[in-house]
Amino acid sequence: MTTPVSNPSQRDLANAIRALSMDAVEAANSGHPGMPMGMADVAAVLFTKFLKFDASAPKWPDRDRFVLSAGHGSMLLYSLLYLTGSPDVTIEEVKKFRQLHSKTPGHPEYGHTQGVETTTGPLGQGISTAVGMAIAERLLGARFGDKVVDHHTYAIVGDGCLMEGISHEAIDLAGHLKLNKLIVLWDDNSISIDGSTSLSTSTDQVKRFEAAGWNAVRVDGHNAAEVEAAIAKAKTSDKPTLIACKTIIGFGAPNKQGSEKTHGAPLGKDEIAAAREFLGWPYAPFEVPEPILSTWRAAGTRGKAEHAAWHERLSQLTADERAHFERMIEGELPASVKEALDAFIAKNVAEKPKLATRKSSEMALQVINDATDMTIGGSADLTHSNYTITRGMKSITPDDFTGRYLHYGIREHIMGAAMNGIALHGGFVPYGGTFLVFSDYLRGSIRLSALMGLRVLYVLTHDSIGVGEDGPTHQPIEHLASLRALPNVNVFRPADIVETAEAYEIALASKHTPSVLALSRQNLPTVRTEASSENLTAKGAYVLRGDAKAPRDVTLIATGSEIELAVSAAEQLNAEGVKTVVVSMPCFELFEAQPEAYRAEVLGTAPRIAIEAAGRFGWDRWIGDKGAFVGMNGFGASGPAPQVYKEFGITVEAVIAAAKKLVA
Amino acid sequence: MTTPVSNPSQRDLANAIRALSMDAVEAANSGHPGMPMGMADVAAVLFTKFLKFDASAPKWPDRDRFVLSAGHGSMLLYSLLYLTGSPDVTIEEVKKFRQLHSKTPGHPEYGHTQGVETTTGPLGQGISTAVGMAIAERLLGARFGDKVVDHHTYAIVGDGCLMEGISHEAIDLAGHLKLNKLIVLWDDNSISIDGSTSLSTSTDQVKRFEAAGWNAVRVDGHNAAEVEAAIAKAKTSDKPTLIACKTIIGFGAPNKQGSEKTHGAPLGKDEIAAAREFLGWPYAPFEVPEPILSTWRAAGTRGKAEHAAWHERLSQLTADERAHFERMIEGELPASVKEALDAFIAKNVAEKPKLATRKSSEMALQVINDATDMTIGGSADLTHSNYTITRGMKSITPDDFTGRYLHYGIREHIMGAAMNGIALHGGFVPYGGTFLVFSDYLRGSIRLSALMGLRVLYVLTHDSIGVGEDGPTHQPIEHLASLRALPNVNVFRPADIVETAEAYEIALASKHTPSVLALSRQNLPTVRTEASSENLTAKGAYVLRGDAKAPRDVTLIATGSEIELAVSAAEQLNAEGVKTVVVSMPCFELFEAQPEAYRAEVLGTAPRIAIEAAGRFGWDRWIGDKGAFVGMNGFGASGPAPQVYKEFGITVEAVIAAAKKLVA
Repeated sequence: MTTPVSNPSQRDLANAIRALSMDAVEAANSGHPGMPMGMADVAAVLFTKFLKFDASAPKWPDRDRFVLSAGHGSMLLYSLLYLTGSPDVTIEEVKKFRQLHSKTPGHPEYGHTQGVETTTGPLGQGISTAVGMAIAERLLGARFGDKVVDHHTYAIVGDGCLMEGISHEAIDLAGHLKLNKLIVLWDDNSISIDGSTSLSTSTDQVKRFEAAGWNAVRVDGHNAAEVEAAIAKAKTSDKPTLIACKTIIGFGAPNKQGSEKTHGAPLGKDEIAAAREFLGWPYAPFEVPEPILSTWRAAGTRGKAEHAAWHERLSQLTADERAHFERMIEGELPASVKEALDAFIAKNVAEKPKLATRKSSEMALQVINDATDMTIGGSADLTHSNYTITRGMKSITPDDFTGRYLHYGIREHIMGAAMNGIALHGGFVPYGGTFLVFSDYLRGSIRLSALMGLRVLYVLTHDSIGVGEDGPTHQPIEHLASLRALPNVNVFRPADIVETAEAYEIALASKHTPSVLALSRQNLPTVRTEASSENLTAKGAYVLRGDAKAPRDVTLIATGSEIELAVSAAEQLNAEGVKTVVVSMPCFELFEAQPEAYRAEVLGTAPRIAIEAAGRFGWDRWIGDKGAFVGMNGFGASGPAPQVYKEFGITVEAVIAAAKKLVA
Repeated sequence: MTTPVSNPSQRDLANAIRALSMDAVEAANSGHPGMPMGMADVAAVLFTKFLKFDASAPKWPDRDRFVLSAGHGSMLLYSLLYLTGSPDVTIEEVKKFRQLHSKTPGHPEYGHTQGVETTTGPLGQGISTAVGMAIAERLLGARFGDKVVDHHTYAIVGDGCLMEGISHEAIDLAGHLKLNKLIVLWDDNSISIDGSTSLSTSTDQVKRFEAAGWNAVRVDGHNAAEVEAAIAKAKTSDKPTLIACKTIIGFGAPNKQGSEKTHGAPLGKDEIAAAREFLGWPYAPFEVPEPILSTWRAAGTRGKAEHAAWHERLSQLTADERAHFERMIEGELPASVKEALDAFIAKNVAEKPKLATRKSSEMALQVINDATDMTIGGSADLTHSNYTITRGMKSITPDDFTGRYLHYGIREHIMGAAMNGIALHGGFVPYGGTFLVFSDYLRGSIRLSALMGLRVLYVLTHDSIGVGEDGPTHQPIEHLASLRALPNVNVFRPADIVETAEAYEIALASKHTPSVLALSRQNLPTVRTEASSENLTAKGAYVLRGDAKAPRDVTLIATGSEIELAVSAAEQLNAEGVKTVVVSMPCFELFEAQPEAYRAEVLGTAPRIAIEAAGRFGWDRWIGDKGAFVGMNGFGASGPAPQVYKEFGITVEAVIAAAKKLVA
């Protein structure tokens, strides 16, 4: 029965996904056939009947976003991209599924494959990132109107996505904000890796979503008409919608379907043969016959007219509006931002205020937010501790998205993921605040910021034992190290208002690198008291006090709040004839990237002492074999900050003693 | 009106908490009065009418557990401990609230203050740890019967706890397991730090908990009778119960109550005076008049008779049963565990199997689980990837707690927190598995394992780019570093089956330190082929190949799967006349703790090359100024593991080339 299908049904279209998925996993001898085969009918309805896209223009700003939150089912997405004619995913690439340098890696990777809207795989991140995309759509729509910005965001999620804690934060926030253009399709297959989901959960997901302010409906995920009706209804809703699609995992594999055996391993030759029989799919591996392929390809071009109409509407904006829109979408900040920050730096070099760097951060943000409307601020319910809201910033509410400040609630993880979604969507530069110690709660998201190369700013205040009375649960010790260990993140710990502003300049200019700003709770003097024509923080480290080229006895390297100690210690040491240089090192990563000669000059050949009110881990890179470290050797303690510093021996006296010991 | 209250009402009792809390925060000029004042009525009902405890015996194994999940409201707990006569919290300690070395730190700290059942502060951890305690109660009850184990677990949670993602994982699991002795009292005050909770959430919590299989009721949190009736009813339920207590934050401060202004700052002199007036509390700061104090003290001794009766029942067990119970409660593993592991090691030194360390881990766990019934295994839905279930281990189900294996679901964070709760409760040693990369999702909990000093074992498999096809989202790069940076955690990355078993020996013997076992997906040869009378892993690092005392040209230091590369490279280098020593370093922390002389001997004075399929961060401590590193310099890639290793230059050839360059 190799006769071409004359008038492909939705099932025929879905079977193309099933066949490609099982064949690709088999060829790779690795991967997850169960989810693509189970959700093929749902995905076929979505892509052929609803999704607004133009396969030839994967970056069309007003396209619907599609997020495969259950990223292990990547063959679902690659099948869809191939079938609809997306440029990157040819049949050759499908055949190279999970092979090195292919366009079809094990989990979908943003920036690697056109048409992949976000990197997924760590469960729960996709749905949460989708919430960020849906927020960005509303924000941009509130600025430019429905004619230019009016699209949906769809996500396919699995049981795992909905068990992960981040999913609670995501649906809670989405329900609150009434993100009615967000439509989530749940692959309700009752199977997880360990077996039946009844091993570990009894939650009524429909009721759960309703409790969070969503519409929620149940459909048979193998009944195309039901799925179609549900999506059509969801599009008219004033709330976000969950469509619980009851499916059979591995649908079509007659002996294995409905079992965890189809989840994460190839079906095997015999079962694939049986599936071909069962599905009525007699074609060779990777063959999609006409007219099934052309019907799919038609879906990929279905959006062309809409795309053209959108361009027409865009051209009706005034030239200024259009340029504004395009600059935002491209992520081009106006030059006035840097100019304003440069002026701010010059002013503060002259005025030398003594301020907590979290306060300096607020002032720098004020300058930035006044100079551009592209920033979207927020905090995980620590607004007045993180100092993340600036004058004139209006809160975003469920009924008004013209604001620029998001109250993320006590939900660090969705804050990170939503910022990723906002950055991915285009139009805005998100920054969000919490305490540095709670970066633990958003590591899953910051890793994706880094992996995807997104300009997301994490404003992390209360950055040391300087937190004081809140004690060890709130005093970061290992957090700087654990963030510095992450590839492609710039971790800034500025010493004063000048370095803080410089860090913001770099963070805003880093279009493909997220930034962390670790900021003090306590006041710090301005130590950058001389004007500089260059951004010294951009070098990662530099000689702050003393002469880099003159002979020295000892080098003190410090960051953030400990620069004050280093400068005081150096003054006393120099007065006593110990030639001491102070190096400020606000960013390990940028210093690492400097030429060897510059690094050698800054570090010098004299013994080095690092001072940081945190753990030593990672500092030996800069201290060297003969150096010393003044910092923390365990967890902190509750008490007034100055006493806590003294308790743990992070004092000017301790630095001086360490220096004398090394020099002796 | 300083006349003594003749017959104190519940409100009088609650006002003692209010006064102590506002006065202590004022004296400290730091802290959170709003929550203790708001929840005072609820807490007074719980402690005077329900909580089974004997203040003089805070370690009575069958006491009810009380967890203050909203840990910032620590003055609520300290007030209760002082009022009921708990040994550590005298009025002098209350006066030293938030001062260094006091028993009343900013957030409650387990191990620091008797009567504090768990460290709280990071929101959502308390309720999740309470779930673990409630699980442990059921497990122990299933083993020893209701006569010896039959207590409730209560938790007070705030809005923040319920917004955090971890709360979803907690209530989902608790509802599934039908933990009907878990009763959660929610401080439903509609206020968070940013202001009204309506800024960020619209969730119907009662419906949400019901969706997860809980009872959920609403009461007026200032109506003692309503609270009492609700708790009484909850105690008869076959499900866990949420009691949503509608409260006014800062109740009693007439001008500030109901506002976020009472949340995290002292009320100020004037408002405190007004509150004294409003509450009819004319007493001096820190004064609790008779008979209010004696009524409270009576609550603290109320449980004495029950405590005595419990001892009586305990004495009715057979001598063996009783010894067994006491050994479990004390956390004393039978000596046979170590003996069995030693025999296992000897056997494998002889047999030299080639196995993934995750498989070796399974075999070691089999030995352990056969030798003791104190271990409780589990996985975050990766049982058959982590290899955490062993033969004969029965799953724990809602209806049967005689099992020993917990299907935590796709919920890493509650797995960590629940393991903390199980360890805190006493009776068991929990271990739980997930992929190393998803340790990101449980960092909040592992930090608390470390801070509290709990024997919790994290079995983290798929520990490098050796994961292969799953690609960069699943390939840990920075995770070893970020875990090594945590104080009081032993991070083991064993090279073979012998080191794996040694790591388990150490982890089980470390009663006050959690352990991470980072284990390979791929097969590794046995490299410890000679019998040793000592546990070499316990030294953190040791010379595996070559003579520590003979002159050498280069030292190769590696961990885990890269030991194989180091050994091969050393063989070739030695054959070419480059005297090469291989150091296996399965645990940085334990090596750091060795005497300087031992460390110097192992590391040697020759140039050193570290080899680890992860980031370099933290390795410079051991490499030194002249060393080199063969490892990762960014994120990984999807492809078959051997190709991925080659792609990133982690090969025998690369090690040899690096060595020759250093030696030249």
